[in-house]
Amino acid sequence: MTPSQFRQIGHRMIDWIADYRETLGEKAVLAPAKPGEIKAMLPSSAPEQPESMEAVLADFDLIVRRGITNWQHPRFMAYFPANALLAGVIADLASTGLGVVGLTWAGSPAVTELEEVMMEWMRQALGLPSTFSGVIQDTASTATLVALVCARERTTRYALARGGLHGEARRLTVYASAQAHSSVEKAALNADFGRENLRLIPCDAGFAMRAEVLAEMIAADVAAGYRPCAVVATTGTTTTAAIDPVAEIARLARAHDMWLHVDGAMAGSAMILPECRWMWEGIENADSIVLNPHKWLGVPFDCSLYYVRDAQHLVRVMSTNPSYLRSSVDDQVKSLRDWGIPLGRRFRALKLWFVLREQGVAGLQARLRRDLANAQALERQVRATPGWRVLAPVVLQTVCVRHEREGMDGEALDRHTLRWVELVNASGVAYLTPALLDGRWMARISIGSAATEESDLERVWTAIREAAERSPS
Amino acid sequence: MTPSQFRQIGHRMIDWIADYRETLGEKAVLAPAKPGEIKAMLPSSAPEQPESMEAVLADFDLIVRRGITNWQHPRFMAYFPANALLAGVIADLASTGLGVVGLTWAGSPAVTELEEVMMEWMRQALGLPSTFSGVIQDTASTATLVALVCARERTTRYALARGGLHGEARRLTVYASAQAHSSVEKAALNADFGRENLRLIPCDAGFAMRAEVLAEMIAADVAAGYRPCAVVATTGTTTTAAIDPVAEIARLARAHDMWLHVDGAMAGSAMILPECRWMWEGIENADSIVLNPHKWLGVPFDCSLYYVRDAQHLVRVMSTNPSYLRSSVDDQVKSLRDWGIPLGRRFRALKLWFVLREQGVAGLQARLRRDLANAQALERQVRATPGWRVLAPVVLQTVCVRHEREGMDGEALDRHTLRWVELVNASGVAYLTPALLDGRWMARISIGSAATEESDLERVWTAIREAAERSPS
Repeated sequence: MTPSQFRQIGHRMIDWIADYRETLGEKAVLAPAKPGEIKAMLPSSAPEQPESMEAVLADFDLIVRRGITNWQHPRFMAYFPANALLAGVIADLASTGLGVVGLTWAGSPAVTELEEVMMEWMRQALGLPSTFSGVIQDTASTATLVALVCARERTTRYALARGGLHGEARRLTVYASAQAHSSVEKAALNADFGRENLRLIPCDAGFAMRAEVLAEMIAADVAAGYRPCAVVATTGTTTTAAIDPVAEIARLARAHDMWLHVDGAMAGSAMILPECRWMWEGIENADSIVLNPHKWLGVPFDCSLYYVRDAQHLVRVMSTNPSYLRSSVDDQVKSLRDWGIPLGRRFRALKLWFVLREQGVAGLQARLRRDLANAQALERQVRATPGWRVLAPVVLQTVCVRHEREGMDGEALDRHTLRWVELVNASGVAYLTPALLDGRWMARISIGSAATEESDLERVWTAIREAAERSPS
Repeated sequence: MTPSQFRQIGHRMIDWIADYRETLGEKAVLAPAKPGEIKAMLPSSAPEQPESMEAVLADFDLIVRRGITNWQHPRFMAYFPANALLAGVIADLASTGLGVVGLTWAGSPAVTELEEVMMEWMRQALGLPSTFSGVIQDTASTATLVALVCARERTTRYALARGGLHGEARRLTVYASAQAHSSVEKAALNADFGRENLRLIPCDAGFAMRAEVLAEMIAADVAAGYRPCAVVATTGTTTTAAIDPVAEIARLARAHDMWLHVDGAMAGSAMILPECRWMWEGIENADSIVLNPHKWLGVPFDCSLYYVRDAQHLVRVMSTNPSYLRSSVDDQVKSLRDWGIPLGRRFRALKLWFVLREQGVAGLQARLRRDLANAQALERQVRATPGWRVLAPVVLQTVCVRHEREGMDGEALDRHTLRWVELVNASGVAYLTPALLDGRWMARISIGSAATEESDLERVWTAIREAAERSPS
């Protein structure tokens, strides 16, 4: 494709996206495709000869569109909001069009330096102390793995430089709440702590970690000869957006020389609101923090911010310095490859820059406040409706609900919940993803799509009630 | 930004990229920015109020452009070719514009299923047996970490499910050639093998791993009570594009029940050429393979293919199954989050699909053959020129050269090499990255930018000779 052909096809794709976004609200939220349907529409081998872009675009429209669930839809209330604001789409197009790879400073100075500045802009916007600096990673899962590897190496005084954990006389333990994200367990296993050394702490009635139980478990582990290594506090759990008590957990972490990682993947974005900062009081004592602007804030996926207090330690754990990556200015610049796992890096700071400037901090704050108000309004409606329960405190934008019929409990209640959620999703009006809470299914209504207005919530709440009534169980 | 504003700004960005690509050859390859220059041009805080896109685009053109090294330039011969073909740029724009996150099949069936089909198209195009299946990852660094974690878990029969490596009586060893990429060491350390247990095998005169030394080291380790766990064979090393003997290494891996990971990050793309497949003879015995279509092949960064023989093992090591990610079709579909570290995933298969169709396998083959011929023509020219040496066999697209003046050796020779490379880079004509070979600096000429024609190589070779003459040393 020549630049001149690119001009023509590029304009068509821009228009396709504009059309798609303009008409999103009229579409069903969930993709219509059945398992295997997309695969069956595709040839079994790559074409030997070039094909026309006409053919490619036609298949994109026909095949791919059937397999797309509309995450940017005003009534997408599944998983978490993952806004891809259009200013960020423009920036990401620029990033791909430039086609640079940020593996060294010299490989494109703007990739490194704009990222440094964006991490600093965001640090200020989030109200974090200036002791923190950071880097953009792909996802919170990867950032949490990096955090636990760094914890392991700090506690063992750089076992990696010697024989790994083989040489350790005492087992290292990791703590997180029973409501922590699955990525914490995955990271602990990948970082070689072993499942037997991962402790999941019970939660209180609001699904937050019980710090006093954490204290007891640490004491019991120390008494049994274990070495407490790291604790993960969650600001905004996946299931209910519960808030672990960071300050109390930080005190325990300090007392036992443990690494404190704060997982604010979802709720971290809300820290641009001063009125929400009580949620991570004590954050200044964290060793590492992760939050995802690619969720609620609106930067197109992937853009996960990883902040640390001791950047030197991070670099010591992650750095390599082969000759083919060296340059004469290495002592004057940062090598962000040494701040994470991948060597090659996309120019992701660009989309954060475009979104922050096009929205302004005040613009982002106003949208998040709208969503918080919408969540509270929905909570009031649910509570006021007979047969309906709100199951967890609504501190952020997630409302957890269940519909109960008289005499219905246990597995019958589970079947009813899953059935009415499936009816809502099949209707196309909204997309909700259920989750287990205290061993029973419930529906999460995760508010925060950039396009979601009060009227959308009213429509979703009507659809939910109708589905629950209609469900035969 | 509304869809209608997006239409207008989007068209401008498309035109900006088309102009940029059209005029690339007239630009200096290396960015003009000095350390700290980009940072100094940016405000110290995010704007409180929204700014106009006019202002953002003006700054993009002014500030970012100064900090961009032109990777798509016809005379970019640093690091490795990282082609971002324009069909792939269109596809990536579609991916970002759709704004979907592939964390479950239901979250967008096309993300999972198109990726499955693309991995299968590529498997065939690369001539890999049907026993392999795979997944798209971000970079080879991450894929190699996944491989070594999987190796660790196979050898220890899932120590992660128990107490990690603490419980192991014998230390696990990992082997790679002394020319292996720095990511192998990084992965071994992150995966907790410990530096003391990483063995770097000496290379032969062509900088390939000496399999007979590998055999000796394994035997010595076994005798000393170590447990050999994994070996990484490289197809196309970073420094000289050397080819480790995969078949011999595979025999040793099998004999000692070791994991064989083949790092074809760069040269793997060349396996679409049947005449190159001798380079990884024995590949059918690999446990895992990584290769990067985001390098030579032309898919915009990031797109790294990770193939495994035993997908069930990969999933067992990497899977988590929290309730909030389950759906009623889970037993009929693949969950690609269980094939790697991150949970959220971009729709990366789209850019592979667009590039394969727009180019056709034959089109990609023709371009790679052009580059191989260009490398050989340059090799002949260098060899025929007094004072110049080719330092390593030119099996692929990397030509390693040194200019020698009579009586000049040791550090004086190093200074001379680094000086003339710097002169070439400062001239703007080309960008080369030097590397150490047998402890002495040399220049790598890494051919394979999609825009590089024979005339570009002539110009670069002239600039190189002039710089070496001009250098005062």
